Amino acid sequence: MTLSRRGAIVGFGGVAEHGHLPGWLRADGFEIVAVVDPSPARRAAAEARLPKARTSAVLDGLFDATEIDFVDIASPPAHHARAIEVAAALGAKYVKFWPGQDGHDYPFQADHAQIWDYAVNGVREIAEFAPQTQFAIEYKAKEPRVHITFSTAARTLLAIQEMGVSNVGIVLDFGHSLFAKETPADVLQLVHKHGKLVSVEVNDNWREWDDDLAVGTVHLIETLEFLHALRRIKWEAPILLDQFPFREDPVTAARASIRTVRALDRLLDRVDLNQLRAAQDAQDALAAQRLIQDLLLHN
Amino acid sequence: MTLSRRGAIVGFGGVAEHGHLPGWLRADGFEIVAVVDPSPARRAAAEARLPKARTSAVLDGLFDATEIDFVDIASPPAHHARAIEVAAALGAKYVKFWPGQDGHDYPFQADHAQIWDYAVNGVREIAEFAPQTQFAIEYKAKEPRVHITFSTAARTLLAIQEMGVSNVGIVLDFGHSLFAKETPADVLQLVHKHGKLVSVEVNDNWREWDDDLAVGTVHLIETLEFLHALRRIKWEAPILLDQFPFREDPVTAARASIRTVRALDRLLDRVDLNQLRAAQDAQDALAAQRLIQDLLLHN
Amino acid sequence: MTLSRRGAIVGFGGVAEHGHLPGWLRADGFEIVAVVDPSPARRAAAEARLPKARTSAVLDGLFDATEIDFVDIASPPAHHARAIEVAAALGAKYVKFWPGQDGHDYPFQADHAQIWDYAVNGVREIAEFAPQTQFAIEYKAKEPRVHITFSTAARTLLAIQEMGVSNVGIVLDFGHSLFAKETPADVLQLVHKHGKLVSVEVNDNWREWDDDLAVGTVHLIETLEFLHALRRIKWEAPILLDQFPFREDPVTAARASIRTVRALDRLLDRVDLNQLRAAQDAQDALAAQRLIQDLLLHN
Amino acid sequence: MTLSRRGAIVGFGGVAEHGHLPGWLRADGFEIVAVVDPSPARRAAAEARLPKARTSAVLDGLFDATEIDFVDIASPPAHHARAIEVAAALGAKYVKFWPGQDGHDYPFQADHAQIWDYAVNGVREIAEFAPQTQFAIEYKAKEPRVHITFSTAARTLLAIQEMGVSNVGIVLDFGHSLFAKETPADVLQLVHKHGKLVSVEVNDNWREWDDDLAVGTVHLIETLEFLHALRRIKWEAPILLDQFPFREDPVTAARASIRTVRALDRLLDRVDLNQLRAAQDAQDALAAQRLIQDLLLHN
Repeated sequence: MTLSRRGAIVGFGGVAEHGHLPGWLRADGFEIVAVVDPSPARRAAAEARLPKARTSAVLDGLFDATEIDFVDIASPPAHHARAIEVAAALGAKYVKFWPGQDGHDYPFQADHAQIWDYAVNGVREIAEFAPQTQFAIEYKAKEPRVHITFSTAARTLLAIQEMGVSNVGIVLDFGHSLFAKETPADVLQLVHKHGKLVSVEVNDNWREWDDDLAVGTVHLIETLEFLHALRRIKWEAPILLDQFPFREDPVTAARASIRTVRALDRLLDRVDLNQLRAAQDAQDALAAQRLIQDLLLHN
Repeated sequence: MTLSRRGAIVGFGGVAEHGHLPGWLRADGFEIVAVVDPSPARRAAAEARLPKARTSAVLDGLFDATEIDFVDIASPPAHHARAIEVAAALGAKYVKFWPGQDGHDYPFQADHAQIWDYAVNGVREIAEFAPQTQFAIEYKAKEPRVHITFSTAARTLLAIQEMGVSNVGIVLDFGHSLFAKETPADVLQLVHKHGKLVSVEVNDNWREWDDDLAVGTVHLIETLEFLHALRRIKWEAPILLDQFPFREDPVTAARASIRTVRALDRLLDRVDLNQLRAAQDAQDALAAQRLIQDLLLHN
Repeated sequence: MTLSRRGAIVGFGGVAEHGHLPGWLRADGFEIVAVVDPSPARRAAAEARLPKARTSAVLDGLFDATEIDFVDIASPPAHHARAIEVAAALGAKYVKFWPGQDGHDYPFQADHAQIWDYAVNGVREIAEFAPQTQFAIEYKAKEPRVHITFSTAARTLLAIQEMGVSNVGIVLDFGHSLFAKETPADVLQLVHKHGKLVSVEVNDNWREWDDDLAVGTVHLIETLEFLHALRRIKWEAPILLDQFPFREDPVTAARASIRTVRALDRLLDRVDLNQLRAAQDAQDALAAQRLIQDLLLHN
Repeated sequence: MTLSRRGAIVGFGGVAEHGHLPGWLRADGFEIVAVVDPSPARRAAAEARLPKARTSAVLDGLFDATEIDFVDIASPPAHHARAIEVAAALGAKYVKFWPGQDGHDYPFQADHAQIWDYAVNGVREIAEFAPQTQFAIEYKAKEPRVHITFSTAARTLLAIQEMGVSNVGIVLDFGHSLFAKETPADVLQLVHKHGKLVSVEVNDNWREWDDDLAVGTVHLIETLEFLHALRRIKWEAPILLDQFPFREDPVTAARASIRTVRALDRLLDRVDLNQLRAAQDAQDALAAQRLIQDLLLHN
């Protein structure tokens, strides 16, 4: 790849240094060209790791939209508003929330009505603060909170309705959906019907935790069904990978998943859609399955 | 109990004879005084089991509201509309749906958007047919369908919104909520906030199936939290039991559950609500837990 | 199929009449030629349903091994010992236990040490009663008991060791294994290593219940891994289907599963076992996956 | 507490510095007096954090049994054998394994028979290396491995039998047992029956993950049943806490759990054991439950 995408890291704490940066350094086609952090010590740490990058204590004026392709926001919550402004100025397509700390762990810990209001009002406030920016909530059943408020697609849609703003949507993560005991292809239709689908992420797990495995390794047929559902809603935006290979090489794992997504996509070209439609109209589960198994099993 | 409640069974198939009737016969304070079924053979079966009851091939004119206290509708779907009319004429407070067959079992079996529309439109049609009748959907994650469309409180609220009718609400079954990986006290607030709470049922299970165990036997603290949430929304209507003791005597099991609900209710009188509120406002899970454990553990 | 297998039903209660018989009547290649039941009324019921079958109040002398191919034991527990004798006389390869009622439902209900002893001693007693007969326990995590004593392969192996008899083994049901949170190919190796594998059954489910779906419809890759593990232990005996199509035609569903098993078997012929071995020796999960995905996805 | 327990940390990598040390520093009654690490940089880090502690590049001669009360082994696997020798010399009662990395993540990744042998042989080798030392395996269903080899009590007992050594037992963690879909009081009896119970740990979770919550906060009745089972086997050794309060103060959380365990213990003094035995002998679940609920609910 001759042309790298150029990015800035905003907030260079431990998460950025030890969690984000190693990925950027290993990946082909990406370069971190700027780091923003108010702490001199943290900027020194960034300079040690990224000798060619510019560093700055403040966001303003550091970069302009022509030279930065993406921003990795890793600053603490109190600085998010400012970061959102900058991301908007840079032309970011959307800003994603992953409110994994909102919820409860124990019975009787929470006034659930109050917690719900906090979560809804907090997102609304941010959405109203930046009405030109598209936001998206990535729901998840648990972790780190044992019970997360925005746990399923349907709960998140209800919350978004209650916010009464038009610039909040949903990131649908295939694995979060499995883990929430949903059928991913089903909730994809539901979120799309409400006009709230902002982004789509794929990976795999064993339905009990966000294992973030490579695509199609456990739920191959459901992944195919999900990609079919994406075609039906004419999804043209990228399908993102959100996987976390604990023991595998991250780049190899990413390539494996991309290869699988492409192969599944080619397979979909060969599904007889009329026959599939007929089987579904007739609620004939075995006929629908046969169409798919014939493709996978070379029958 | 000196005064029995008098009921009619509408539709006397196998479910009514072998599933419903034995319960009515064993329970104190209930009497089945009328059976309606178009089949002479089924009426004969009813007469053999209930010599004092009147039987009839048609609903009309058989009974009037003054002598019947409740109607047990056990007829097949094609006859439901007529049964609803009669229930309404008799002053039934609500008619409950349990759409346990709506959904899918296999990947690729369903066009999920179509299945959702069927479910939403079907209930809307009935609701519009009888606009004076209150309906309620009892959601459940699965069984008998492996994936039921109305699986959680939030999905059912979204569906009810889409129906655009005002006479459909929700039956919140504590065990179905556990089984759907919800926090029952949390979804109680959510359904109440939307003004859709029609009925409440209690029981217990192990969070993986609708075991329909006696109340408070596994999730004692969460049952207490649920009863506390019912007080907070000033629920005055009955709290129903929906348990299914496979091996225990049903009447003994019902009495055990009633006894537990009453004891939990007395315990709630002793919770210091100001301290609980303070702990919840401070997100102090351990302080909230201590209030409850002190009561249960006699500290 | 020109030659039918001839069977006898021993015990013609409701389970046999309504649960077993309809299946035999619908299936190709099977004929019920004899029914044994001590009750005249039940024999009359059998004669009404099976005009050509012989009926008898007692087992002895009714049939001999040359004309009966299989026995469907549907009598209550008190009669099992006698039925085992007859099955042995007829040359049955093994007698299967499914102790789905042994266990507990509630906390504090059971003295767990006592319950374990009951389960172990009960099976041992039967095994010692018929030392020439091979028995096999089909373990299952739950249903109908909420917690079944013989819930996993490992617990059952421990129990069999404690029995100290040589004629009790295990029926390994793929779906029960998924449902017990096991990896089926893993426990297959474990049971085989202990020399206790008596029979193997396949189907599929969603890992939370014994849904008894058609083979390979949800866990296609794990089914392939299971068939691969069966090859590795050189399993030559039949692979049985244990599925329960609630809404699908049972014969169509059985044919679909047989077709899938055969196609997966053909696919296994094409796996490069040296490469697979190399990937496994290197703990290279992605390389192992790639071998399999290349086959399924036509890469 | 006037007298502190004095400990040494062996291996001062990131886990020790950021994971272990902060806990020791905050806890009352503990003091880290020595740190062993071969790296000068790591020893310098230790000295910066623990100015009063002695540091050393090697284990030998650093400390003797009279002045060290406990050893926190945080060195990498290659150094474990040496650390075990030292722990033994210091009089450690047992050395615990938590083989959370042994297992597999993906289908087809592992030759399950090989993985099992690795796990069994690895522990056997260590046990034979130090035959005077008692070892104990803390089984867990998953995390960090998605499927851990020693996942349940029964699998671990089978593995220990296969090792053929007498100095390997089990650490039974209440929460790991819930999470493995076991009944903790049941497997306690099973492990005890095999003479392999080495240590017991308590905490709580939501049965789907090792949430490590404070004791009795979710499964109060099962915790009581577990403590009852400990009395029945006359367990006299300490009951350890293994909890991980993400958001709560760790010392407050530990005190809350200790308080709950003590209160449950007092409650057990008041259970009528003859009545409980009679209810269990009769398999009368409701009578057994009533005994417990009467205590908890002040009936």
